[in-house]
Amino acid sequence: MYIEEIGERGLIRRIQRKFSTYNRSITIGIGDDSAIIKTSAGKSLLFSTDTLREGIHFLRRYYTFYDMGWKAVAVSVSDIAAMGGVPKYLLLSMALPSRTCIEDIDKLLNGVADITKRFGISLIGGNLSRSKGGVSIDTTMVGELPHGRALLRSGASAGDLIYVSGVPGKSAIGLSILKSASHDRLKPFYSKSFIVHHLRPIPRVKEGFILGKKRLATAAIDISDGLLSDLARICEQSDVGASIYSNLLPLPEVPKMIKKRLAKGTEFYALYGGEDYELLFTVKRKNKAKLETICKEGGLTITYIGDIMPPENGITLIGKDNVQRILKTEGYDHFRVLRV
Amino acid sequence: MYIEEIGERGLIRRIQRKFSTYNRSITIGIGDDSAIIKTSAGKSLLFSTDTLREGIHFLRRYYTFYDMGWKAVAVSVSDIAAMGGVPKYLLLSMALPSRTCIEDIDKLLNGVADITKRFGISLIGGNLSRSKGGVSIDTTMVGELPHGRALLRSGASAGDLIYVSGVPGKSAIGLSILKSASHDRLKPFYSKSFIVHHLRPIPRVKEGFILGKKRLATAAIDISDGLLSDLARICEQSDVGASIYSNLLPLPEVPKMIKKRLAKGTEFYALYGGEDYELLFTVKRKNKAKLETICKEGGLTITYIGDIMPPENGITLIGKDNVQRILKTEGYDHFRVLRV
Repeated sequence: MYIEEIGERGLIRRIQRKFSTYNRSITIGIGDDSAIIKTSAGKSLLFSTDTLREGIHFLRRYYTFYDMGWKAVAVSVSDIAAMGGVPKYLLLSMALPSRTCIEDIDKLLNGVADITKRFGISLIGGNLSRSKGGVSIDTTMVGELPHGRALLRSGASAGDLIYVSGVPGKSAIGLSILKSASHDRLKPFYSKSFIVHHLRPIPRVKEGFILGKKRLATAAIDISDGLLSDLARICEQSDVGASIYSNLLPLPEVPKMIKKRLAKGTEFYALYGGEDYELLFTVKRKNKAKLETICKEGGLTITYIGDIMPPENGITLIGKDNVQRILKTEGYDHFRVLRV
Repeated sequence: MYIEEIGERGLIRRIQRKFSTYNRSITIGIGDDSAIIKTSAGKSLLFSTDTLREGIHFLRRYYTFYDMGWKAVAVSVSDIAAMGGVPKYLLLSMALPSRTCIEDIDKLLNGVADITKRFGISLIGGNLSRSKGGVSIDTTMVGELPHGRALLRSGASAGDLIYVSGVPGKSAIGLSILKSASHDRLKPFYSKSFIVHHLRPIPRVKEGFILGKKRLATAAIDISDGLLSDLARICEQSDVGASIYSNLLPLPEVPKMIKKRLAKGTEFYALYGGEDYELLFTVKRKNKAKLETICKEGGLTITYIGDIMPPENGITLIGKDNVQRILKTEGYDHFRVLRV
């Protein structure tokens, strides 16, 4: 049997079963956005690691070296943000073809430098190796958090409200534009924001930190594999269901010229598109006003999009016609063929 | 200009210049075996990361999946050991071809499980991705250490004694045997220990911990790129020279049938062979007796092999004939053609 048959989630479960260790310092091990280790009475450290591989996660013809550096760091910063942590230290491992130009490496490092500077992250180490294939970047991010303030995937309960930061779907639309053969001809008609969202996402560190510090969110995750796919993870780990209201979803404003060339409607990209790195989180109903006030004051865009339901509800989308549809929630699986 | 022209060390220097950050919590950043972060009054955390890539660091025809799992973890545990730390937490990232058999993954995980169990390490997270090429394993190891007890590369001074743990060169001889076309015919004549040393090295955690705890070593490094190459790093970072005595070097006992088929003499493998993961360390002369007593009591094999000299001495080998030779110290460089 090949791993493509059990998929990424099957493999993660297999690893969890094999390595179920007990250690009092480990607050959270495998299975959330980051691991959490209690290091002193008041403080915990967060650990997340991510990979950006040419030909798998990105194609060289869409990405500059600067983009590669930025995005490789952004994706693991986002995992720290999704737990409510502050990113602090970075380990950067790069596998590079020997015939990579120094100038290109410098651009890659500029991307890393700019995003680490923006979030006050220190590069503390890493590893270099030669690659016979393309560029591959592994990042490990260490974050900090007051003990007991982490935003887990497992804390949602029926009655909680579901929120999303920003406007999900922009990244997938950006990728569609990049893939489009008529890319150059479209240039005058779209703002670059879709493509920039895809290539240089900005992890929601401030949002995550406020949600954790003020104890506002009951559960949170970053949208890396798609809103519904990541919502399904919250539902699975919290043992709840969810209803999303179609008319509440913040949809990207797409110029007509672009819209008619996209394979799917904007709602599809908002629900199924990956790599947004927005936060999806749940909040107690009684904290609705407090949350919205704090976010407004902080200039943070969040939108109420649905409700956490009892588990037997499954994950449903309530359409504008009030018709309820049970949703396929599978997002990107690294070992399976994409089915959505 | 391509990176193969500036090499791995040139690239590391470039990164160090670009990311020279100041943060009081960072005791050691880029440039030693591990990074050190002070997390509380008494305790520091160590961070090291390493990569094992098929076709670059290993060939599938020599390695079982079990070996890959073991070695990927061993190499980053060794970096923690070389600082005198205790390995605690592991992040494991694997890039795997979709058509990898579950049974092979299980073997790989068994290798990881066995070495983590041996050293009391907890797997806390990681990342999975598809690979279009071969298997690639990235490990990030988090270790612990009492604050101020780290074994750095930079602490050696003229007059210190140079020691090595175990018998360096075994791993490179193991690799030579594996590469030898007559591998199978040689089987009856050699103990498997060379090959096992290459495939499943045992990082010197106990040795490193004792050297740090008892404040015995002034500098230390693990031999990953070759004894001389790694000695050169201690010399560079401590601003000293070194003399190694040929007659003191512990040499592997190689059966005749193997010896005559090896391309080089055993001394060559001991000096230039990489991937031994033995510790190379320096000790104040006045602590010689104390060190040797403690190691004897603990059943640890260490050998005095030379002296730290003033920087103008360079790195020299004093032969059995008492003739002094200045040595080429370049070991494996990931981006350059191997010249030794």
